[in-house]
Amino acid sequence: MKALEERILKDGVIKPGGILKVDNFLNHQIDPFLIHDMAVELKRLFGGKGVNKILTVEASGIALAIMTAYVFECPMVFAKKSKSKNISDDVYSVEIPSFTHGNTNTVIVSKEYLHKNDRILIVDDFLATGAALVGLKDLAMQAGAEVVGAGIAVEKLFQGGGNKLREQGMQVESLARISSMTDDGKICFS
Amino acid sequence: MKALEERILKDGVIKPGGILKVDNFLNHQIDPFLIHDMAVELKRLFGGKGVNKILTVEASGIALAIMTAYVFECPMVFAKKSKSKNISDDVYSVEIPSFTHGNTNTVIVSKEYLHKNDRILIVDDFLATGAALVGLKDLAMQAGAEVVGAGIAVEKLFQGGGNKLREQGMQVESLARISSMTDDGKICFS
Repeated sequence: MKALEERILKDGVIKPGGILKVDNFLNHQIDPFLIHDMAVELKRLFGGKGVNKILTVEASGIALAIMTAYVFECPMVFAKKSKSKNISDDVYSVEIPSFTHGNTNTVIVSKEYLHKNDRILIVDDFLATGAALVGLKDLAMQAGAEVVGAGIAVEKLFQGGGNKLREQGMQVESLARISSMTDDGKICFS
Repeated sequence: MKALEERILKDGVIKPGGILKVDNFLNHQIDPFLIHDMAVELKRLFGGKGVNKILTVEASGIALAIMTAYVFECPMVFAKKSKSKNISDDVYSVEIPSFTHGNTNTVIVSKEYLHKNDRILIVDDFLATGAALVGLKDLAMQAGAEVVGAGIAVEKLFQGGGNKLREQGMQVESLARISSMTDDGKICFS
């Protein structure tokens, strides 16, 4: 998506260790018009698939996910990072390692909000190693729901998570696909 | 706001200890149309105030805040819960005690995203003791920004936080104002 690539080139900042900061418009300060245009693009990509629920994980996936839910005219569910290790029987849970923070989060969804007949589109702001996507897919599968695909804002192709999931048959669509980036600030899209 | 009150009566669940769960439509599973209608109502209430930025705190304020930003045609900023106690010079920070979780979070906003000339509308899903609102107002004041007011989904009037802030001169508008609720499930609006 051209507008997103241009915005990354204009406002993205590369930090040492392969971290791309898009705090200016995507996950700290957020441009609601860009988010809306991205949601419309996800509707174009997944519109014919019978999606009835959008699934993301807190916190930075929520903005794109709620706007996508608005455009798809269906509810959004966000998985919560659990504060306790004692997981109740009322929730589905999964462990998701964080690339950015170097830790692992236990992530939960109430069993009330994922069902066997759901057709789920997973939405997130970033795709790198794919750990969050794998975790969210796992939550959906625990409920017996079908994952129709994943709509991502920014994919770091060179970290391989997206292509691994594509090889397993998941339709993963990323609105900006970064094939390489260097510490001196050069970003290439694919 | 009638639609929100009706939804609370239909889908809200009272838990012991004065906790109202609105997980079904507001802060776990989210109804994007209700959120949009709430954003439109906030525009009616604060539309003439020159708001140029929406401020909230992760995670459950984000959905209403991004939709409000979309309706107001301005950026949204969400304050982040800091993972570390070492706060860098690049951020404004404040301590916010959590009524629901019984702990305290250090909450930060990058100095890049709050400015002296900003006219800020604070948005959040819940208002009880007012701790989150006080903290967000503090962040704005650290930047020298003006807080135009606060737009809240659900206020628990009987916990007093909202009226304390109103007495201090803040325009606090809540879309559902709960004057009392009992453990056996009776909810009264004011």
